[in-house]
Amino acid sequence: MTQLSLPEIPPYDEQAAAAARQRQNRLTKPTGSLGRLEELSIQLAGIARSAAPRIERKAVVVMAGDHGVVAEGVSAYPQVVTTQMVNNFLNGGAAINVLGRHVGAEIVIVDMGVAADLDPHPDLLVNKIGYGTANIAVGPAMTPAQAVQAIEAGIEIAVSLIEQRQIDIVGTGEMGIGNTTPSAAIAAAITGQPPAEVVGRGTGIDDAGLARKAAVVERALEANNPNPEDGLELLHKLGGFEIGGLAGLMIGAASRRVPVVIDGFISTAAAMIAVTLSPGVRPYLIAAHQSQERGHRIMLDWLGLSPLLDMDMRLGEGTGAALAISLAEAACRILSEMATFDDAGVSDREG
Amino acid sequence: MTQLSLPEIPPYDEQAAAAARQRQNRLTKPTGSLGRLEELSIQLAGIARSAAPRIERKAVVVMAGDHGVVAEGVSAYPQVVTTQMVNNFLNGGAAINVLGRHVGAEIVIVDMGVAADLDPHPDLLVNKIGYGTANIAVGPAMTPAQAVQAIEAGIEIAVSLIEQRQIDIVGTGEMGIGNTTPSAAIAAAITGQPPAEVVGRGTGIDDAGLARKAAVVERALEANNPNPEDGLELLHKLGGFEIGGLAGLMIGAASRRVPVVIDGFISTAAAMIAVTLSPGVRPYLIAAHQSQERGHRIMLDWLGLSPLLDMDMRLGEGTGAALAISLAEAACRILSEMATFDDAGVSDREG
Repeated sequence: MTQLSLPEIPPYDEQAAAAARQRQNRLTKPTGSLGRLEELSIQLAGIARSAAPRIERKAVVVMAGDHGVVAEGVSAYPQVVTTQMVNNFLNGGAAINVLGRHVGAEIVIVDMGVAADLDPHPDLLVNKIGYGTANIAVGPAMTPAQAVQAIEAGIEIAVSLIEQRQIDIVGTGEMGIGNTTPSAAIAAAITGQPPAEVVGRGTGIDDAGLARKAAVVERALEANNPNPEDGLELLHKLGGFEIGGLAGLMIGAASRRVPVVIDGFISTAAAMIAVTLSPGVRPYLIAAHQSQERGHRIMLDWLGLSPLLDMDMRLGEGTGAALAISLAEAACRILSEMATFDDAGVSDREG
Repeated sequence: MTQLSLPEIPPYDEQAAAAARQRQNRLTKPTGSLGRLEELSIQLAGIARSAAPRIERKAVVVMAGDHGVVAEGVSAYPQVVTTQMVNNFLNGGAAINVLGRHVGAEIVIVDMGVAADLDPHPDLLVNKIGYGTANIAVGPAMTPAQAVQAIEAGIEIAVSLIEQRQIDIVGTGEMGIGNTTPSAAIAAAITGQPPAEVVGRGTGIDDAGLARKAAVVERALEANNPNPEDGLELLHKLGGFEIGGLAGLMIGAASRRVPVVIDGFISTAAAMIAVTLSPGVRPYLIAAHQSQERGHRIMLDWLGLSPLLDMDMRLGEGTGAALAISLAEAACRILSEMATFDDAGVSDREG
């Protein structure tokens, strides 16, 4: 029996959240007029246990892994692109590098299980659990021990970013050719929705590819028959190494009261595993955006999250998370930098 | 007969837009996977007449004015709040100051017609057309000459920001207790929609206030009977001084090929006047966000604009525009900073 050791998640602080809401209502604007920004600031207050939470150091953690299920022809791109894109991240040329620079977030790249040995690079964290997962259409993605290893690596990365680099908010990102397929399988297993309702076009497969992908998810569920209430089993049977790492990252961040901005489809599948393992993680999660990937809405609904952005994006890498981190920072700044009606000598509403 | 002199608007450059689209398709990501960010970069290329447009200097222009129609009880706040909030802007304590700092945009405050003399301040531009408009429920808001003056002041401000401060993008903002009422009247006049469909709660009026507001718009349309195809007449009969200034600002920016990010309900009414006066302004406009104010969707549809953000905001001041300016900057950076498949040695999709 494999043992997974999970950290305790401190409760969300309702008092700090209430204090932040009271402060929002005294700021020089009509009550509620900053909408989602106000709600976000209140959530961040509850997470940080402070009525004036601060976001200064920001990071997006991009975890990479390969997937044996690509043998089923589920992706529009060859598997080697995972490795090539990791190198692109390390060279600063990918979308997440640009958006990270734009919002002032550092980008942390982790090899959780790419199917090739990557050249050493000072910015590359290597936590390779394997050279890609096995094909979930015919059996489990990884061993139970590997699932434990992936989650624990993610927890450790979160804790070290928070303790050593004083990160105040973490965004999730990923790279892994084929990884929308295990994500869809996880979503179908947990929500009970039919595979055709949760699979999407990923990087851009055609109609035939989409039908094939739904059939592959169907086969993965039949071959593995996972218990939808067992997060570790879901990961071991259907997951990806980067999906397990991201689930661990979320648990680790929540254990230290640090908010997690989840990106798109794959990150959301990781969040479903994280919440299945540790329900206390839920209030620490912020959904960055509504992905164009079919099924994402169903997954966010299951998590009870409402995305901040809807920009028709479907790239992954943490690109949506980077944009949303900037909104979270804006929300905190509103709370701490705006004048109150009293401060500014502005009349509040009549009656 | 009052003469309004309008600058020529250069055409949107389809060739530069096409070149930007081609470049987007060579960047290391699945085609179209950055969704609205890609579309935005392409629009900005067409505006700037460059396949690699740059956004470095950013400004939000916040125009303030008062409204005689407050005599009808259409706002939840007393008129003095317009003056108080202008002072709050000048002291850096309002939401737009915080968000301007967050996105790196300078805030330009203009007194277009506040109903009091404001204390001189180095950051306050004074273009006072009058001490508030007249009550539109009983007659025209301003004289035709004042309408010309408001628009020309806006044009001049845009041109001077662009020529003297090298502003690359301009956001619109406003402050004026009561100004959702003239905005709704303009929207109803131009679109032909019944007042009840376009009026909203503004800063937060109750159901009785909302019904009163719809009736006031109805009376304003009856009392003034504006020609919906005459932008100047719409402004003179229904407008506000800040609404005219913003319409001029949009025309001035477009005349210099500078994109304009329009904020919420009031800015959108100004955009409708700008486009009625100068249809060539339309491709230079970017809609920041979907306001919670009822009727905003109808107005954006009339303009053919799709908002970037939907954050349940309804504050005005340019707060939505500030957030969207950051997205526009991100879009430009993606276009110029990302590696192409060839640069990065990444394999493009199969087949």
